[in-house]
Amino acid sequence: MDNPLPTPKDPALGETVWRTAVPIRFSHCDPAGIVYFARYFDILNGVIEDWFCQELHIDYHEVIGRRRVGLGYVNASAEFAKPGFMGDKLDFAVVVRAIGRSSFRLRIHASRGPEPVLLAELVIVATSLETHRSIPLPDDIRAALELYQEKCQ
Amino acid sequence: MDNPLPTPKDPALGETVWRTAVPIRFSHCDPAGIVYFARYFDILNGVIEDWFCQELHIDYHEVIGRRRVGLGYVNASAEFAKPGFMGDKLDFAVVVRAIGRSSFRLRIHASRGPEPVLLAELVIVATSLETHRSIPLPDDIRAALELYQEKCQ
Amino acid sequence: MDNPLPTPKDPALGETVWRTAVPIRFSHCDPAGIVYFARYFDILNGVIEDWFCQELHIDYHEVIGRRRVGLGYVNASAEFAKPGFMGDKLDFAVVVRAIGRSSFRLRIHASRGPEPVLLAELVIVATSLETHRSIPLPDDIRAALELYQEKCQ
Amino acid sequence: MDNPLPTPKDPALGETVWRTAVPIRFSHCDPAGIVYFARYFDILNGVIEDWFCQELHIDYHEVIGRRRVGLGYVNASAEFAKPGFMGDKLDFAVVVRAIGRSSFRLRIHASRGPEPVLLAELVIVATSLETHRSIPLPDDIRAALELYQEKCQ
Repeated sequence: MDNPLPTPKDPALGETVWRTAVPIRFSHCDPAGIVYFARYFDILNGVIEDWFCQELHIDYHEVIGRRRVGLGYVNASAEFAKPGFMGDKLDFAVVVRAIGRSSFRLRIHASRGPEPVLLAELVIVATSLETHRSIPLPDDIRAALELYQEKCQ
Repeated sequence: MDNPLPTPKDPALGETVWRTAVPIRFSHCDPAGIVYFARYFDILNGVIEDWFCQELHIDYHEVIGRRRVGLGYVNASAEFAKPGFMGDKLDFAVVVRAIGRSSFRLRIHASRGPEPVLLAELVIVATSLETHRSIPLPDDIRAALELYQEKCQ
Repeated sequence: MDNPLPTPKDPALGETVWRTAVPIRFSHCDPAGIVYFARYFDILNGVIEDWFCQELHIDYHEVIGRRRVGLGYVNASAEFAKPGFMGDKLDFAVVVRAIGRSSFRLRIHASRGPEPVLLAELVIVATSLETHRSIPLPDDIRAALELYQEKCQ
Repeated sequence: MDNPLPTPKDPALGETVWRTAVPIRFSHCDPAGIVYFARYFDILNGVIEDWFCQELHIDYHEVIGRRRVGLGYVNASAEFAKPGFMGDKLDFAVVVRAIGRSSFRLRIHASRGPEPVLLAELVIVATSLETHRSIPLPDDIRAALELYQEKCQ
């Protein structure tokens, strides 16, 4: 039950990978004094929002709000290598693993300095917010994902 | 990217499996109008709390509070087969998949009537809340897990 | 800064007041080991949902979902008399304080046995979910609120 | 039920008041498409954390973690003047209203450009995390609050 996490030497994590620092807050933590596992998934969604807006140059909130395209999760998994604590500043790095017709797969690494803390895999599907059924990835999102994936290779 | 979910005919889900119904609330849902994926993990933790207290007859809150034994997550994954909506009443069923020295693996199925909605796998590790390092599963928890696992076979 | 909370002898809290019990979970609590104050407001929204569905016989989720009527907050306040702990079962009692043209004011008392834990006041306004502007209270909601208010006097 | 909010011309909001910008995320919002009222209180706690660390130069997480001093809420109230939307960047400004023996009262203004969105009042009490009873405000916190209050007059 104990898969070692890839270290930051992972070739997927070159200089061109987009990264962001997230401060760990009081309210992220549970009575055990560490980041509550469910809250990590919420933090991951925030990381993806910022990656869309800052790196892909796609307005995440407009996609869901005005364009009525859902970016829902088909699958979400995370390995929690080390606990996160209040006051930590964790670095999150986003890697595109695969791009399908209506979905894409991300891997997100979080670390505290050189120490891996979390490794997540998320499959996100584009949906119609009227029907909640999958739709082809909008062209601008597909293009931005492909561009980012190339840039990171 | 599209693994079909096991249907409720899954042999693991016999009559003896513990189940609970969870009402889906306004605050579980996001601007897309469906249960926010991160909130599902929070709901899953509540299901596990109730399963401990009602079925295993172990006081979950006393374990963490007075006994200072953490029940942290090493790994959490979920497949979201169908969206959950406000007003839904989802059935959650808990299956023990494996029991290790200091950790155990659960599978939790959620369904809306006959329709699978979510399939989750969670690896929970016992830790010292002083050191945040893993410790052997406390005897009463191990015994209760083994008893439940047998009962469900 | 220290207003004493009304005791359960408060005349507003007769036998006819609707009450519900809420178990305090691990995830409601913060690193200080007590219910996180923001989470109390989330719990209060759940209490109101259940009060709508069970006592007023109005489907809260249909109001917001199908009918597209928002039940937003204009004002929310709470006094936290005593901390809430994991494993507590708190009783919540709902009192209608005032009914206006487009809004209504609730007082919610939470207690642990005879001990007051929280006293909240919430002003909820009906809105159009298209414009986010206030609208007159729908007739069925107004009638149900008036009926409940009478019953509790 | 409709108290007008103070405008940003409020004398309490001079140039010296500490301000921070908070991006409104997908997960802050509810199925009505606006910031969920309970989540605002969580955002307010984050604002206070940053104000402690950045302006008062007191390590909020160390206070609660290593020093075992709770900074709990006795009272929390908010008026929601306008809905907040995904993608908004709201400005939060923190004002100290009163400093008591073991507690202090803050007023926090949030606005979207010139438009007031939220006005909150929060009474925070120092507690022992062993007994959950109030204790005198630690000297460094009192001194920092007084200095800030003077600076803002």
